[in-house]
Amino acid sequence: LKEGKITGAINVVWDGKSEKYMRKPAQGELNLTPGAAYVHICSNETIEGIRFNNFPQTDAPLIADMSSEIMSRVIDVNKFGMIYAGAQKNIGPSGLALVIIKKELVARCPDTVPVFFRYKTHAENQSLYNTPNTWAIYIVKLVTDWLLGLGGVAGMEKINEEKAALLYKTLDASAYWTTPANKADRSSMNVVWRLPSEELEEKFVKQATAAGLIGLKGHRSVGGIRASIYNACSLDDVKALCAFMAEFEKSNG
Amino acid sequence: LKEGKITGAINVVWDGKSEKYMRKPAQGELNLTPGAAYVHICSNETIEGIRFNNFPQTDAPLIADMSSEIMSRVIDVNKFGMIYAGAQKNIGPSGLALVIIKKELVARCPDTVPVFFRYKTHAENQSLYNTPNTWAIYIVKLVTDWLLGLGGVAGMEKINEEKAALLYKTLDASAYWTTPANKADRSSMNVVWRLPSEELEEKFVKQATAAGLIGLKGHRSVGGIRASIYNACSLDDVKALCAFMAEFEKSNG
Repeated sequence: LKEGKITGAINVVWDGKSEKYMRKPAQGELNLTPGAAYVHICSNETIEGIRFNNFPQTDAPLIADMSSEIMSRVIDVNKFGMIYAGAQKNIGPSGLALVIIKKELVARCPDTVPVFFRYKTHAENQSLYNTPNTWAIYIVKLVTDWLLGLGGVAGMEKINEEKAALLYKTLDASAYWTTPANKADRSSMNVVWRLPSEELEEKFVKQATAAGLIGLKGHRSVGGIRASIYNACSLDDVKALCAFMAEFEKSNG
Repeated sequence: LKEGKITGAINVVWDGKSEKYMRKPAQGELNLTPGAAYVHICSNETIEGIRFNNFPQTDAPLIADMSSEIMSRVIDVNKFGMIYAGAQKNIGPSGLALVIIKKELVARCPDTVPVFFRYKTHAENQSLYNTPNTWAIYIVKLVTDWLLGLGGVAGMEKINEEKAALLYKTLDASAYWTTPANKADRSSMNVVWRLPSEELEEKFVKQATAAGLIGLKGHRSVGGIRASIYNACSLDDVKALCAFMAEFEKSNG
């Protein structure tokens, strides 16, 4: 939004701020602009743990930042004018980005854009206009080989659904845990919950870390607990987390 | 030059094209523009193997692309408004760039530049505005530790001078080899030479490769032979190359 305002007129189609970003908007709530150049969404939100299960219907090309869920579930790429994603969540190492863009949008680029920043430049040069991040590209090859071995994105999606279902089931089974995100919009990548007190949350993170379950502290802007169960996190990892949670609740309930 | 023309008025201060880029310009040859925003140079040129031994004197801030010689010799950083370099030659892996910039130039940035592309953004956020190429940064730490162990850039410069002197001495000792670059402007990173015929050059590269001396083929735009003896190339490597050259000349002279 901040960057877009520098380049042109921006219309905020929907703002979840007043509801603390706990849900995604319904189609009817979107204040779409007729004749807009594009509509931008973030398909999965990592702080509160929400995602678009159904993507907005738009006349303008839909552009999605899918950094935090790319390759985690089957997406109909044809619905999007452009999809982009930083590699560091599900694709490979940081320092690389993936872009899937319609040819007609590649062509739509004013001459005032520096040559290096035109998608056209990179499309025409098969992503070798500059010397790219070669090591990261090699690792992406290994990651995608591994993904293909699991049945591709469709196979990965099944595993991710199982992981998320198990964790949400554990959370929903007891009033000890509370999940602020709207149920229909729950992310299968970022699962966010609270404990009865901040003291217990601190204790939870500390003991989990000691048990080898790391990175569970919620985003600093909202607190609480967050499990980022990206593709690299296995079903066994989630099972271990749920077992730890059961033990923790028994001792601290 | 191509990118600069998109943003503003450009004056080509000097063009080496008519002399096939075999030398750097003298101070008196520069057609400097009074009141220019900056003057841009490439301090070391990799195709013909030339470099600025003495940098231009300019009233406008001097900006240098030092990708192919950064950390190879001691430079008075104060003479430059900005120095930038891709990491992949002497700093570390590809996919990372180094920028050394004067604070007054960081501040000089129009509001029309996207936030992400402002040096100010990255300076204020200590290069952590985005998730950077973490693996490459770690490797840069290992490379700089190694460099410090050799006596830092000053220590490296001595080694590089010895490497280049040995190779140029070998080339100058026999009319079998010819070196197109102007002697006063010879690069200590990229050493370029020719053999009596293109057939011999092809044979040279082939036999060198078989002997473990790789990457010696000249740039496709000029042909010939090129040894890129960056920091990672040791004095022993250059000695091995010179020994191979002596043998080759004996067998094919």
